[in-house]
Amino acid sequence: MDNLWQISEESFDPNLKHIHSQETVFTVGNGYFCTRGTFDEGYPHESAATLLFGVFDNVPIAKEELANAPDWVGLKLVVNGERFRLDKGKLLAYTRTLDVQTGLLTRHVLWESTSGIRLQVVSERFASLADEHLGIIRYRVTIEESPNQQPVEVNLRASFNIAVGNYDLMHWATQDQGHTQNLLWLRSETKHTKVSLAQTMSFNTDDAQAKKEFADSDVAPSIRLNSTLAPGATLTAEKVVVMYTSRDGDEPLQTALNHHQKILGSAAEATTNSPHHVFVYNYQYDRQIEAWQKYWQQADVIIEGDDTAQIGIRYNIYQLRISTSEHDSRYSIAAKGLTGFGYRGHIFHDTEIFMLPFFTYVLPDIARNLLLYRYKLLPAARQKARSNGYAGAQYPWESTLNGEETTPSSIVHPETGEVIPVLNGFLELHITSSIAHAVWEYWQVTGDDKFMREYGVELLLSTAMFWDSRAEKDEQEHQYEIKNVIGPDEWHEHVINNAHTNMMARNNLQTALAALHWLENTAPTVATTLIEQLDLNKQRLAHMQDVQEHLKIPQDKETKLFEQFEGFFKLPTLDLEKYKGRKDSYQGILGVEEIQKYQIVKQADTLMMLTMLRQEFDLHTKQVNWDYYFPITDHDYGSSLTPALHAILGSELGHTEESYHMFMKGALVDLENLRGNTPEGIHAACAGAVWQAVVFGFAGLRVTSDGYTTNPHWPANWQRVAFQFKQKGTSVSIDLHR
Amino acid sequence: MDNLWQISEESFDPNLKHIHSQETVFTVGNGYFCTRGTFDEGYPHESAATLLFGVFDNVPIAKEELANAPDWVGLKLVVNGERFRLDKGKLLAYTRTLDVQTGLLTRHVLWESTSGIRLQVVSERFASLADEHLGIIRYRVTIEESPNQQPVEVNLRASFNIAVGNYDLMHWATQDQGHTQNLLWLRSETKHTKVSLAQTMSFNTDDAQAKKEFADSDVAPSIRLNSTLAPGATLTAEKVVVMYTSRDGDEPLQTALNHHQKILGSAAEATTNSPHHVFVYNYQYDRQIEAWQKYWQQADVIIEGDDTAQIGIRYNIYQLRISTSEHDSRYSIAAKGLTGFGYRGHIFHDTEIFMLPFFTYVLPDIARNLLLYRYKLLPAARQKARSNGYAGAQYPWESTLNGEETTPSSIVHPETGEVIPVLNGFLELHITSSIAHAVWEYWQVTGDDKFMREYGVELLLSTAMFWDSRAEKDEQEHQYEIKNVIGPDEWHEHVINNAHTNMMARNNLQTALAALHWLENTAPTVATTLIEQLDLNKQRLAHMQDVQEHLKIPQDKETKLFEQFEGFFKLPTLDLEKYKGRKDSYQGILGVEEIQKYQIVKQADTLMMLTMLRQEFDLHTKQVNWDYYFPITDHDYGSSLTPALHAILGSELGHTEESYHMFMKGALVDLENLRGNTPEGIHAACAGAVWQAVVFGFAGLRVTSDGYTTNPHWPANWQRVAFQFKQKGTSVSIDLHR
Repeated sequence: MDNLWQISEESFDPNLKHIHSQETVFTVGNGYFCTRGTFDEGYPHESAATLLFGVFDNVPIAKEELANAPDWVGLKLVVNGERFRLDKGKLLAYTRTLDVQTGLLTRHVLWESTSGIRLQVVSERFASLADEHLGIIRYRVTIEESPNQQPVEVNLRASFNIAVGNYDLMHWATQDQGHTQNLLWLRSETKHTKVSLAQTMSFNTDDAQAKKEFADSDVAPSIRLNSTLAPGATLTAEKVVVMYTSRDGDEPLQTALNHHQKILGSAAEATTNSPHHVFVYNYQYDRQIEAWQKYWQQADVIIEGDDTAQIGIRYNIYQLRISTSEHDSRYSIAAKGLTGFGYRGHIFHDTEIFMLPFFTYVLPDIARNLLLYRYKLLPAARQKARSNGYAGAQYPWESTLNGEETTPSSIVHPETGEVIPVLNGFLELHITSSIAHAVWEYWQVTGDDKFMREYGVELLLSTAMFWDSRAEKDEQEHQYEIKNVIGPDEWHEHVINNAHTNMMARNNLQTALAALHWLENTAPTVATTLIEQLDLNKQRLAHMQDVQEHLKIPQDKETKLFEQFEGFFKLPTLDLEKYKGRKDSYQGILGVEEIQKYQIVKQADTLMMLTMLRQEFDLHTKQVNWDYYFPITDHDYGSSLTPALHAILGSELGHTEESYHMFMKGALVDLENLRGNTPEGIHAACAGAVWQAVVFGFAGLRVTSDGYTTNPHWPANWQRVAFQFKQKGTSVSIDLHR
Repeated sequence: MDNLWQISEESFDPNLKHIHSQETVFTVGNGYFCTRGTFDEGYPHESAATLLFGVFDNVPIAKEELANAPDWVGLKLVVNGERFRLDKGKLLAYTRTLDVQTGLLTRHVLWESTSGIRLQVVSERFASLADEHLGIIRYRVTIEESPNQQPVEVNLRASFNIAVGNYDLMHWATQDQGHTQNLLWLRSETKHTKVSLAQTMSFNTDDAQAKKEFADSDVAPSIRLNSTLAPGATLTAEKVVVMYTSRDGDEPLQTALNHHQKILGSAAEATTNSPHHVFVYNYQYDRQIEAWQKYWQQADVIIEGDDTAQIGIRYNIYQLRISTSEHDSRYSIAAKGLTGFGYRGHIFHDTEIFMLPFFTYVLPDIARNLLLYRYKLLPAARQKARSNGYAGAQYPWESTLNGEETTPSSIVHPETGEVIPVLNGFLELHITSSIAHAVWEYWQVTGDDKFMREYGVELLLSTAMFWDSRAEKDEQEHQYEIKNVIGPDEWHEHVINNAHTNMMARNNLQTALAALHWLENTAPTVATTLIEQLDLNKQRLAHMQDVQEHLKIPQDKETKLFEQFEGFFKLPTLDLEKYKGRKDSYQGILGVEEIQKYQIVKQADTLMMLTMLRQEFDLHTKQVNWDYYFPITDHDYGSSLTPALHAILGSELGHTEESYHMFMKGALVDLENLRGNTPEGIHAACAGAVWQAVVFGFAGLRVTSDGYTTNPHWPANWQRVAFQFKQKGTSVSIDLHR
């Protein structure tokens, strides 16, 4: 049986798109940094990247982006003057494996140089989960054969390389560089935001013959090992790298140097290394296994009977962990995590809707941090609301460190150079209620009253106040409307009373008022202070109640069918048969303007609302809306976000096969590069949606005020589903057998 | 008396804006490449650049730009482990001089390290005018003092550095890198346009003790010299660099290596160097002096009595030479030459209107190349006309290698990120007639009938056909109009019958018809073929004649005053007194929309037309228009192009003092960074305008069909003006004494 923790490739495919996609897939990381799976020896036109949690620099149009740090991976191997690289010489054997159980990336290569030197090269790499500042590469070179069995001169150069960019945009300038007796260091700074990064390196070998040299350089400082190996001999070298930034505290260089010496010291103490060839790998790898074990004890989802699904879900759960810090609440999870340049490290509602439930149920401490990130940015959200003429707090559609709106107001077409306006930052309002909903759900599941008292209620009320002021009163009908928005379905702009937006806004108002009520009962002085601070007089609270009660929701009272927005049903339907076999989204085919005229949906919109508020609707309502909207949604080329999320509703309605199909679209989106854009980074929202699909969909978990229920729906072949979650501080193990 | 060929600075000013401005000013170059005056040892946040004539890569929005090549200048000096750089240690003395007579940049520094080592460092650098592929740095280090007079360990590292960008955008990827016995080489390629660049380096010293090492690297390969110097001792090292690209032919690396060996060989032969320490500098410097001497014999302008003007004009004439190739007609002179990233190396009408006259009169072979560049791009100009629905050839407002319109259709505000539409590529038509005018003038001055027969007439007719089809007939009045344009004054968009545009279009039609008439008389078969090829039937020719005769020119028949465009006189004037002391252009103050409503002019528009067609107008007409337009033009913060050009008309009208003032604004625009944007590169158009101001303005040169006249107007203190030009192949020396 295959190892159900491992992502492997058994041969090397030089197709550049495939290489870039696999660089994303084979990312190692620990939430402090992630490093794409580029080859140690480099490769022409590779897309090497190490992205650090919350380290941004400015970029034209898109405002700011995670700044690709100087590459720490580089290891140049030269044998008798011939350079080893996968595009040179002759590749005789190749395998690469990412073991998500331990976070270890391993590559085995058998290679022959032009002159006939045959090498075995084994490279192992991990980003330590036990020590988030630490990255290690162990590199073993064995001379299998050489011409006339002569000894071979081996030259191995380990470097930092500042000549990397996001795509081609450079973000770092060297401030200083040097070396101590055993450590090479590079201190660089982002060009605009002035974040300082210190990287230190040790590079050691067990080969007592090897000569070590430091080569200082502002651009690519390195440590070189020179040796001579007889056929059959192996050289093992270890590149140990420590990284600290000015976000971690003052004096990152001194901190990194000290930390690095401590790492070497601990390893020397724990082992019998000679002082000059301290080997860190085994010692640190043990700690790595331990740290990942601890994670998997809480986070693993077991699926028996379907190996592809089992590996897929584990890979997605691995991605969720490496995308976020355990302790830093100044930043959140980007659309692509820390694995690629797509969406430039900006935070969308992907986090709250798709990923946060995993953390809320499994790792509530991280969930709390992710919500604290939003709480801390309330001032900026208030500013956004104010500058748009509204009260309360309006969260930005795209968010980075300071909480200002970072959605570009236009994008430039990469080929035509055409400038395309982007309205999302102006019109896509529903993120504000997504965040409120996540706070409420976090509270319901964790029972974290302290968080609620200190932060949650304030956030709920502030966002509710936004909706209260944003809704327009229709005096004649005594109802409220929300006009000129984009709902989750981004193919329809400037719409009126989007069902999702209005339902979620109403939910926001309801939960805010309920939370205030709770606060008044449980902590009356806190409540009084907050009411004063937010200037929530009786009149305003009554208005909020009125809006909540009379906010217009376009739904047929008889049939229970929601209308996605007012007028949607008047649009012609699209003859989908006509487009069978298409290779592009309906929007791509019809154009941004034309698509608006049809009943065709980019991603779950009404169905997403029904999923999020699933405990408020009866099965009939869900069924009616599923039947209407599921067929007119572009599950293949629309948004990648929602296919897997559909499995929650789908399972509940008994559409298990269809749900499984949707679930797998999410589970394999990166592993099989289903959307063609994996080179830009993983689909972090999918990772979260996939977890939800299993837990809320196939297992049918629902927490209640006094416990939980499950309601399994078994995809073909699935024999067992098991996972854990925490409810109000108590661990709950679910183990379902068919 | 000061040396009137030298630009010097006597102290080091660490202000970063000043540093960047001086990097532009101290550029060395030879028309094949230019290298900004960054320091050999680097400097934090420097803007290092080497731009190669016609070597482009893609860039978002602006389409393509000259791709900043891997930096060849770097020389890192370390003494006893302490790094020498101008921001470190203690700077005791500093001078830097660019001698434009020889193209040599010299810097003297006296410096003390933290530990008390006192160094004298002399650096000399030139881009060879005798061998355009060659750049040399001679670097001398003298230990003046050391603690306890101990010998000092000196480590000197010469590198190539690929970690440079245009601003921060990287354009090159290493293809391969290595070294031979005596040469280090780097082969890189532009990321999108796939231009291949080979750079080779030798690095030698006269210090027989010095140890030399090659350090291979894909990012910053280098050669290191290690030595130990006693106090009083000097180490002289020479970094010799050769560059070839795939634009020069196949196998640029092999060509560069061969060429480099030849350079070393010639030097060894010519001198008594030991084979291991071949010194190239003296030998090549002699050739450099010779080549520049040859240039100055033709191009120098002598101004006696005004040292600032003398140095200024020579600096500008130096810039004109280093901005363009002597033999490559695939590219022309960019707005910033090869000295900075401004305007991204695009070609504007700056070349034809401002710079070309210098070449036409002084270096007609180069002028011919610059016009050939336009001729070769006729197919693209025809395509542009066709795609706009017109006949003939319409040149792009911004042009690079393939002649397509490269004016961005919008720009992104660097601070706000706002996207601002740019209309120039659509509406600024007059470049087409500027090019035609330059062809005509070239012919008039050089008498190059062969060029005219083979290329010139076709270009004139093709551009005339564009105007013929672009002009709209007003049937009632029997006149033609040109609507919806931007004239040279870019502050007024969508104007009708711009006097400059229409007069120059008429001129284009007239000269085209005259040239055709000449061709029919002198080469009837060539004429017949051309007429057929352009499909110029009698009817069309008659129409061209008709348009030429009846094109509407807004001018008051009585007063002779031109109206800049129809309706200009109806606009309110601006109360200029109100803006005294402003630090921004009127457009900057009023905004793009508001400025359109006033009679305020960015740059010479009507007056430029009167300058270009100066032999067609009487003094009275010139005076009337000068009096009207000169005062309402923003000479300080409008365009930098035209202040100096005003001196031609101004001198003729006797406004010598005002003209001198305008001339100096041009002559010193870069030397004193008058516009604040010298960091982005020199103002090449100003360089041409300054030459024209002296020759056509103060000296009053006018060529006639059978000779020339001068009509000097002497600025205060000027005692003598002398220069040369070529008329129909004959050299003419002008030497005017007050």
